[in-house]
Amino acid sequence: MNYCSQCGATVDRTVPPGDDRPRYVCRSCDTIHYQNPRLVVGCIPEWEDKILICRRAIKPCYGLWTLPAGYLENGESVSEGAMREAEEEAHAKVKMLQPYALYNICHINQVYLFFRAKLLDLDFRPGSESLEVQLISIPEIPWDDLAFRSVERVLKHYIRDRREENFQFHMGDIRRKLPSFHP
Amino acid sequence: MNYCSQCGATVDRTVPPGDDRPRYVCRSCDTIHYQNPRLVVGCIPEWEDKILICRRAIKPCYGLWTLPAGYLENGESVSEGAMREAEEEAHAKVKMLQPYALYNICHINQVYLFFRAKLLDLDFRPGSESLEVQLISIPEIPWDDLAFRSVERVLKHYIRDRREENFQFHMGDIRRKLPSFHP
Repeated sequence: MNYCSQCGATVDRTVPPGDDRPRYVCRSCDTIHYQNPRLVVGCIPEWEDKILICRRAIKPCYGLWTLPAGYLENGESVSEGAMREAEEEAHAKVKMLQPYALYNICHINQVYLFFRAKLLDLDFRPGSESLEVQLISIPEIPWDDLAFRSVERVLKHYIRDRREENFQFHMGDIRRKLPSFHP
Repeated sequence: MNYCSQCGATVDRTVPPGDDRPRYVCRSCDTIHYQNPRLVVGCIPEWEDKILICRRAIKPCYGLWTLPAGYLENGESVSEGAMREAEEEAHAKVKMLQPYALYNICHINQVYLFFRAKLLDLDFRPGSESLEVQLISIPEIPWDDLAFRSVERVLKHYIRDRREENFQFHMGDIRRKLPSFHP
């Protein structure tokens, strides 16, 4: 951030009075520009013993598989956002069943929230951000071709809970991958 | 938003190509300025059969009672944010027990996430944003002097779950209050 979105003057990076961390503050109108994490909402769409996954047609991770998910938009609830993403990425009609997992990805200022969802019919097809959309069974999950660690994590939780027939709300952190140590 | 925070040029409110809703887009450098809901994180600090509440020393709702809560900051997890807010508002040391309730407040682009938390000692005292901090029992909850509907909602859930000794994760919407109809 270089300029104040209110008045167009330049901003400073400084700790405002009474605050405890640096913010972008306008030199002219004194507006403080707070920056906060963004919520990513998504779901695991279920149909009988299968789940719906999408192959990405956009960067990052073009060609890899993911669950329908994306940034929550202003004016929508977390369930509405997850529903919209399933519609956008897979033209899938879904109904949220339960909030299922929350993952903090602090180093990129994201919080992921996944739902379990019920796929309502089989009229799905790729949206503009997907190359293909498939219903797969658990043994068919393409572990080596998943787009995001959040997706890998939630699917691991999901498989275990489904085996034990006990779906719990999960919470965890996804940390920056450290480079491997090569002596 | 009037100016591009990247280059300082003026922005237009327009639907970018491939998008489906208006965004602020820079006329000069084409940066799209997305705006997304913010997460508010807080907790119900428990000590034996009591809970900790704070009386607000700041606007809005100066003088009314609330649970420690505030905007999640970049770089922190939702539990860390809730812990920091308890420290800031009540100098309270708390340990998060479980994510407990999520409320969408769509008309102000906020998502509230409350935890149940364990108060670790009794060395609490008002932070700069609080007039006073008190441990109260359930019958002492000042229902008519609560600051926010999210706080009222989570306390109602909490009381019921505690009575039934069954704490479930809750989710719901807090909608704009409509003016009363006076015939």
